[in-house]
Amino acid sequence: MHKYALGLDFGTLSARAVLLDLQDGKISAQSVYAYPHGVMDRELNGQPLPSGYALQHPQDYLTALRESVHGVMKESGIQPEQIIGIGLDFTSATILPVNEELVPLCMTEEFRNEPHAYVKLWKHHGAEAEAEYIDRIAKERKEAWLTSHGNKVSSEWTIPKVLETLHHAPAVYRKARYFLEAMDWLTSCMTGKVSASLCGVGYKMLYHQGHFPDHAFFASLDPALSSFIADKFPNTILPIGSCAGTLTDTMAEQLGLCPGIPVGTAIIDAHSSVPGCGIHQAGDLMIIMGTSSCHMLLTENDAEIRGIQGIVRDGILPGFYGIEAGQPCTGDLLAWVVENCLPESYIREAQTRKISGHQLLTDKLYGYHAGDSGLLALDWFNGVRTPLMDFDLSGLILGLNLQTKPEEIYLSMIEATAYGTRLIIEEFENSHVPVHRIILSGGIPSRNPLVAKIYADILNRPVITSDNMQASAAGAAMLGIAAAPKEITGYHDLNEITAALGSTGSKINLPDPAQAEIYDRLYEEYRRLYRYFGEGSNNLMHMLAALRHRH
Amino acid sequence: MHKYALGLDFGTLSARAVLLDLQDGKISAQSVYAYPHGVMDRELNGQPLPSGYALQHPQDYLTALRESVHGVMKESGIQPEQIIGIGLDFTSATILPVNEELVPLCMTEEFRNEPHAYVKLWKHHGAEAEAEYIDRIAKERKEAWLTSHGNKVSSEWTIPKVLETLHHAPAVYRKARYFLEAMDWLTSCMTGKVSASLCGVGYKMLYHQGHFPDHAFFASLDPALSSFIADKFPNTILPIGSCAGTLTDTMAEQLGLCPGIPVGTAIIDAHSSVPGCGIHQAGDLMIIMGTSSCHMLLTENDAEIRGIQGIVRDGILPGFYGIEAGQPCTGDLLAWVVENCLPESYIREAQTRKISGHQLLTDKLYGYHAGDSGLLALDWFNGVRTPLMDFDLSGLILGLNLQTKPEEIYLSMIEATAYGTRLIIEEFENSHVPVHRIILSGGIPSRNPLVAKIYADILNRPVITSDNMQASAAGAAMLGIAAAPKEITGYHDLNEITAALGSTGSKINLPDPAQAEIYDRLYEEYRRLYRYFGEGSNNLMHMLAALRHRH
Repeated sequence: MHKYALGLDFGTLSARAVLLDLQDGKISAQSVYAYPHGVMDRELNGQPLPSGYALQHPQDYLTALRESVHGVMKESGIQPEQIIGIGLDFTSATILPVNEELVPLCMTEEFRNEPHAYVKLWKHHGAEAEAEYIDRIAKERKEAWLTSHGNKVSSEWTIPKVLETLHHAPAVYRKARYFLEAMDWLTSCMTGKVSASLCGVGYKMLYHQGHFPDHAFFASLDPALSSFIADKFPNTILPIGSCAGTLTDTMAEQLGLCPGIPVGTAIIDAHSSVPGCGIHQAGDLMIIMGTSSCHMLLTENDAEIRGIQGIVRDGILPGFYGIEAGQPCTGDLLAWVVENCLPESYIREAQTRKISGHQLLTDKLYGYHAGDSGLLALDWFNGVRTPLMDFDLSGLILGLNLQTKPEEIYLSMIEATAYGTRLIIEEFENSHVPVHRIILSGGIPSRNPLVAKIYADILNRPVITSDNMQASAAGAAMLGIAAAPKEITGYHDLNEITAALGSTGSKINLPDPAQAEIYDRLYEEYRRLYRYFGEGSNNLMHMLAALRHRH
Repeated sequence: MHKYALGLDFGTLSARAVLLDLQDGKISAQSVYAYPHGVMDRELNGQPLPSGYALQHPQDYLTALRESVHGVMKESGIQPEQIIGIGLDFTSATILPVNEELVPLCMTEEFRNEPHAYVKLWKHHGAEAEAEYIDRIAKERKEAWLTSHGNKVSSEWTIPKVLETLHHAPAVYRKARYFLEAMDWLTSCMTGKVSASLCGVGYKMLYHQGHFPDHAFFASLDPALSSFIADKFPNTILPIGSCAGTLTDTMAEQLGLCPGIPVGTAIIDAHSSVPGCGIHQAGDLMIIMGTSSCHMLLTENDAEIRGIQGIVRDGILPGFYGIEAGQPCTGDLLAWVVENCLPESYIREAQTRKISGHQLLTDKLYGYHAGDSGLLALDWFNGVRTPLMDFDLSGLILGLNLQTKPEEIYLSMIEATAYGTRLIIEEFENSHVPVHRIILSGGIPSRNPLVAKIYADILNRPVITSDNMQASAAGAAMLGIAAAPKEITGYHDLNEITAALGSTGSKINLPDPAQAEIYDRLYEEYRRLYRYFGEGSNNLMHMLAALRHRH
């Protein structure tokens, strides 16, 4: 009788449950359930919400959990006894205030119309002012953690969202027993034990090497926050690959599963695709290319690297430091070209051929080689995350002439994001963090093989394209296996599980030496523009940003 | 009884005859006649032509002359005796080989199928190889005239076109008694006296301060060319504002005019709009903005200015040095944005509102101020004429982000061409050639008032928009007045005529001090990019051009 792990993948709009077969690592069945309230960004119970808000209803998570688990069990025909562990990934920082009994405050009568009592989704941008304030205080105090968190506090992180609640809804702050990541809340509900995942606190809550920012820092933000960690956050912080507890009788009954099944410590959804793709060695770099790019690299030692989001031991895989770096627009940049630089004749051609604008431009690039466009671009259309962490920088296209075609602009944008990735890799290596293997995953490279080809030529290394479209859910299931005893699974730890069951993808793109030689020269020019406009020789981009924002 | 001057304006596709009333300078009547053969750029008598060729049939000019003069006389009801002079403007360098009797060689049986026996229109680009060759030889020989002709030989000029004929059709070269500018041929046909206009030779034939390039230079190009000037070019070169002769009996009969009417020395069409717009003082700068921009400035002294097309005494108005500078794409640049950066929703909106893409983008810029776009561009999409004379430079857009809109790119292009104009003005002034007054004319500013407003703010001076859409034809008519005796006209010279009868235009755009202050800062940044990318600090644009052209 095959054994299975249940993987639960909580995304922005829906949750997915999968069953992973321990015999071959394949996903046997899946079931998706969309959150009934979706993202609440316009109104709450008929009251309008301020711009930038993005709330969710925690009841949706419970409903989606129950429905997707029932769905996948029914679909698969597998018996509950065959499930040996449960794992969970979730968006982050997606946080909510709960009481002692773990009831979300928004589900109590007192706060049902209070926006700050609801879940603040990762992309809730109501805490911009708080983020700027925290950033300023941290820099004044020269907080040591700044360097390992990119030297810039983001409004998407946990502490700004909590401070926003304290400012706008002090009663919610006072009533909250805990502010929890949604992934930790669900884990705690399933196990009856309150804990927090090291992944969430490491990448989104300024936790580094066993410590949060100190008491004095929190006090300097607001006296009411001074004992926030001790009073309103779980005492227990668990590394990735550990067991967070076992399924309670109540929860087992609701889900139609056996009580006592081990539940793994939860992980952030992007990070989950690292084990999901079978990445398990120091020097493995996984790049998830969606609207933006997220770079996750495993390494054996701590390091100081400019502009990373975080470096967390046991934050992705046990025993490794997991580094997260980023480029804030890649897919978005290509979409900008398609939305803004498609002449009428191209639009008609795409409609006639029933293909997307992306596909049309890619088709028109057939036969193009390095240097043929005559263009060089800086991919800074949404600022720069790693390494400069400067969001007032902006995009540049150089080499334009009256014959320049939209597909050439499109090509220059793909190339620019690849140059930006090469710069990040060099930043890693200059900080003595080696990169041995590069795996591209996400929507962009899976839809457009040209992207991986150009990345291979520009990085001048083999680039593996992952064809694993269920990597996050598979990774979550692996956390469930890791939570179960070795006697049952046969594996010592998550690393062994990842090596055995993860699927990296089989498409290897080798660099073309002739192309790579030209791209080497163009990359030197990209670096030169990077230094000139990005590192202070010419401050024009900041001047333009200040002018644009002066009204 | 009113007196009139007949102005003949020979453009690329048609000729226009106008009658200018000496009493008020107004145009009383006009008649247009399109050339039957148009531009022959695909075939000649059924034989295909090489790419880049642009020929015309000289019979078309004669027909258009006759028809348009008959037309305007009939339309006006004016008596032939009322016409006191005839003037002519023409495209240039538009040249043709003729025999001793001024019969074009293409109109002899021997050469009727020989492309090189026809008129080579100004935009005939068959002599690219010859232009490069002449440029190389001139630079090797350090020819002094290079500096007053922009340091770069253009394939559109006369000598490359003649050398092309020598190379490809030596029999035509041998048989030709003269190679004439079409304007000089028509003038000679009307007067029976062979001469050449100083305007044509000064701006298009390397003539400077009374001299052509010397014998040795022509010999170094090809021994057969060594006595080209002496053997195959008119001995008489006449300044603008002079009388080239009087109408012959034969021609008077054909045109239905009185024999003996004075015919003025002809002028290039763009240059004709200087007197036509009433520009007659040192320091007056006229900018004609069409697909490209042509800057014509009157000054009292000779000067060396980087990258000008020419500086010719008596070449535009008597007693003045006329300077011609240029920007090789302005209207073309705005057209590039409309053709390449108009999203589908914008195209639909323009169609619904029945307006052009240009108008739509301009409408969307309502309320924008200096710096609002967040963009700064270099307008080098077709290289740089004045001052750098470097056609391997290319365009740049900086400051782009995911929110950048097409209208903002459009605005940045208008601004960039204005910065480029300011740079040219500063180049004049740094060469001790003052600029006192700026007049914008041509299709772009007349269609779009925003352009003149932005030019005024960026140049930080009043900018006059000419509303004189017949400036070239009016200027031609003034040359006819200048050719007639003072006893009849009352005027001493063309300058007096221009001052009295020319119409500058009444729309004065004053700079807005708040905008000008911001544009001053942005212009400094434009200059910095100009120096960095244009003057050799960063050679990237040349590298990209070389890569693009390497196949």
